[in-house]
Amino acid sequence: MNKTGTLMVLIGPSGSGKGTILRELLQMEENTFLSVSATTRPPRPGEEHGKHYFFLSKEEFQALIAEGGLFEYACYVGNYYGTPKAPVEERLAAGSNVILEIEVQGAKQVKQMFPEAVTVFILPPSLSELKRRLVDRNTEDLETVERRLETALQEIPYAYECDYVVVNRTIPAAAAELRAILLSQSCSQRAMRPVIEQVLQG
Amino acid sequence: MNKTGTLMVLIGPSGSGKGTILRELLQMEENTFLSVSATTRPPRPGEEHGKHYFFLSKEEFQALIAEGGLFEYACYVGNYYGTPKAPVEERLAAGSNVILEIEVQGAKQVKQMFPEAVTVFILPPSLSELKRRLVDRNTEDLETVERRLETALQEIPYAYECDYVVVNRTIPAAAAELRAILLSQSCSQRAMRPVIEQVLQG
Repeated sequence: MNKTGTLMVLIGPSGSGKGTILRELLQMEENTFLSVSATTRPPRPGEEHGKHYFFLSKEEFQALIAEGGLFEYACYVGNYYGTPKAPVEERLAAGSNVILEIEVQGAKQVKQMFPEAVTVFILPPSLSELKRRLVDRNTEDLETVERRLETALQEIPYAYECDYVVVNRTIPAAAAELRAILLSQSCSQRAMRPVIEQVLQG
Repeated sequence: MNKTGTLMVLIGPSGSGKGTILRELLQMEENTFLSVSATTRPPRPGEEHGKHYFFLSKEEFQALIAEGGLFEYACYVGNYYGTPKAPVEERLAAGSNVILEIEVQGAKQVKQMFPEAVTVFILPPSLSELKRRLVDRNTEDLETVERRLETALQEIPYAYECDYVVVNRTIPAAAAELRAILLSQSCSQRAMRPVIEQVLQG
């Protein structure tokens, strides 16, 4: 009997470095995949169906909602975005890990639908460091930076509800902690029950 | 505010390789220490108080029992053996990890006294492999090997109650899993609460 993989939900404020840590993790872990979201917005040039998004019609998306086929979904500016269950469940059953990079609201939905999901909050070392990182990006005016900081302050308390909290001091250290969480999950009693059974049966 | 360390309880049948994995782990982890047991049996040549055991009189040991100063204890052939709380709690408060290598009965006591303890069961890859390892030791007659196998069969179901299960296929792989469990524990929400608080306070 196969050990199933881990569904890891990554949450963190804008500027926490979540995306960079995730890229580092995916490069190091062969058996870990990023979940592909579904959306009803039209593809942009270069975007591929099944790689960047599953591009669905509104009817297809609503059918998925109706049959409980999504871990979470939301509507932004008239378009649906969500995480289809089937491709995630296939990966997990094959023993792979799947990472979901989503917002707090989505994470709460996933945890409710799938309590075995492991939620990890990526925290900046401090708010002043977060501000510095947002300013250093140099892509946004100060007003946008201030708005992002306010959103961060609203999001960070969700860390108290997550299973794990990783502080992004350096990318390699944070990625190493995520890898340790994945490896430890593969040894969790829940994951190992079929193995215990096998050993006991000789 | 300091992050506290993890109390890891290692359990595994005779021949599981628990001791060897533990030595490998302790060599790699600077900040992880083996708990020193207390006993009322007299020291053997070369054994040092505070290093191999805390050698106590029967009265001292019974006083510890009375004041709830032990995580677990048992009596074997007229002597007490147990785990004093105070030195473990000091290490944990200083941010170090502490490992307890004990029997199933002791592990159950520890988990009841200190639910944050993380229990890890070391499993042989199979019963036939366990038998091979016990026979290969070449130190025991076949009858003793058979008795140890029977004890193993009684102990292994406790793996279903442990937090983690590590299969000892190779020593380095098993030690790496223990290290991952320790690192992931240091990111657990429980351990990270003071850090979240710090970040939120700016």
